[in-house]
Amino acid sequence: MILEIADFRITPGRQDEFDAAIVHGVQTVISRAKGFRGFKVNKSLETPERYLLMIFWDALEDHMVGFRQSPAFAEWRAIVGPFFAAAPQVEHFTLLAKSENS
Amino acid sequence: MILEIADFRITPGRQDEFDAAIVHGVQTVISRAKGFRGFKVNKSLETPERYLLMIFWDALEDHMVGFRQSPAFAEWRAIVGPFFAAAPQVEHFTLLAKSENS
Repeated sequence: MILEIADFRITPGRQDEFDAAIVHGVQTVISRAKGFRGFKVNKSLETPERYLLMIFWDALEDHMVGFRQSPAFAEWRAIVGPFFAAAPQVEHFTLLAKSENS
Repeated sequence: MILEIADFRITPGRQDEFDAAIVHGVQTVISRAKGFRGFKVNKSLETPERYLLMIFWDALEDHMVGFRQSPAFAEWRAIVGPFFAAAPQVEHFTLLAKSENS
């Protein structure tokens, strides 16, 4: 399994709208993609315009090819893109270690 | 619950040593702190020197006061600090939403 982390900076003052949009976008668009295994949306305490979207995929290709090269990617961006104040920063991670309960 | 994310960039070529050091440091030092609830260590695919350490705390103060202002913080930094190529970037996050299985 691969963890995608998308680091978003949105326009100040639009947090409440974006809270709804990002969850709606994940639940209605991304979660239907092949290889999607789960998600978390985290909001920064220190930087109120910063969000980290974490998506678990079976494989890197499920995100970069299966999702990003499908029409669903444009659907997703139409929902969240209008809030972006900067280009999203996206990287993928493997899990080195974790505690039993997390 | 609060999620701390510490974003580390280490000296290239020392990944195997750091893999062992970061897990050792969390398991022997941080995990004994009051309010510690769990951890994950993630390694970037695109940036092999980048690690994200995720720690779940009961409250922000457990990390910023209870841990950082205790002797344990220097113990932790003695284990991982020698590998750092840049100052760590640390922020705290709240969970806005998640899927049932993640």
